Amino acid sequence: MSATRDIDALIEMMARIPGLGPRSARRAVLHLISKRDMQLAPLAEQMRRVAQTARECLNCGNIGTDEICAICADARRANGQICVVEDVADLWAMERGAAFKGRYHVLGGTLSALDQVGPEDLRIPQLVDRVAAEEVSEVILALNATVDGQTTAHYIADQLEGRVALTSLAQGVPIGGELDYLDDGTISAALSARKQL
Amino acid sequence: MSATRDIDALIEMMARIPGLGPRSARRAVLHLISKRDMQLAPLAEQMRRVAQTARECLNCGNIGTDEICAICADARRANGQICVVEDVADLWAMERGAAFKGRYHVLGGTLSALDQVGPEDLRIPQLVDRVAAEEVSEVILALNATVDGQTTAHYIADQLEGRVALTSLAQGVPIGGELDYLDDGTISAALSARKQL
Repeated sequence: MSATRDIDALIEMMARIPGLGPRSARRAVLHLISKRDMQLAPLAEQMRRVAQTARECLNCGNIGTDEICAICADARRANGQICVVEDVADLWAMERGAAFKGRYHVLGGTLSALDQVGPEDLRIPQLVDRVAAEEVSEVILALNATVDGQTTAHYIADQLEGRVALTSLAQGVPIGGELDYLDDGTISAALSARKQL
Repeated sequence: MSATRDIDALIEMMARIPGLGPRSARRAVLHLISKRDMQLAPLAEQMRRVAQTARECLNCGNIGTDEICAICADARRANGQICVVEDVADLWAMERGAAFKGRYHVLGGTLSALDQVGPEDLRIPQLVDRVAAEEVSEVILALNATVDGQTTAHYIADQLEGRVALTSLAQGVPIGGELDYLDDGTISAALSARKQL
């Protein structure tokens, strides 16, 4: 590298962001420097602000700037349903779908024997507490369709059995999906969960 | 989006960085927030510092933090050779090669009739001035092998003809390149510039 130490340090830090490698970090930094006043300075300020204010919601684990996140604080949302997701990215994905009007619970990962992640490392006890404390009629398990995700779903189902209605997201053909490109597991899941027209 | 306004604003700003789209910006921001103290806050501070200090070298157009960049100020580098590049990314690429020990001149783009970029929009007059003022024995045109790059090279060659030795980077087979994967133009350039073993 031949820029100054400050610029090299910035490139190194940018290269650690997932999705950017050393080459794209260089490109990004050059771009940002060329738009110094319009992009670099505002971005620095916004990052500083978020670094100071971002925090996990005490109730559900979502990321926000208050003790209780905007979703938990929104009186228009249904209290009776809790949608359990692995992480905040999944919560955002659910919100983009805009079909769910209840509350969330962010686990912060999945159970994993290999990585030594147990129930106490996730927010599973908090979920059990919420089901006991709040008037919850349904817990929707929206975990990823991976081995770890499904293991976690089974564990949570065990913990909550008999206390609340438990559901999980339907598995099947994605909208716009072509059968020829789907894996066998998805096709057989879609077939066994077929619906009357 | 369902995070707070501050986080949404940060994602939007990150998504404008070349190489990051909305999806990878979301991922990047979640990652940065999860490493708030180790990554997000230092990155914000480093960006602020670079936004304040980064500037173009008055002599060559390289980006640095001083009026005269580290390369122009380095007394160990040869004064007699100027390597002309399109932009700072190309200068950095040349420096990674570590084969050139002279000075640089960054044009800031290429001539382009379509985009209405003329010689005055680039740092071509400054290059002519440097050749007149400094003791320059050779100008190496290291412009990209694109139509615009080569047009610009021809224009500069016209301007400097008779005043200084002009060279350009060799064209040929890249190191590690396989003939079968090279385009016809590269192969014929490499053939016509063949060397005695």
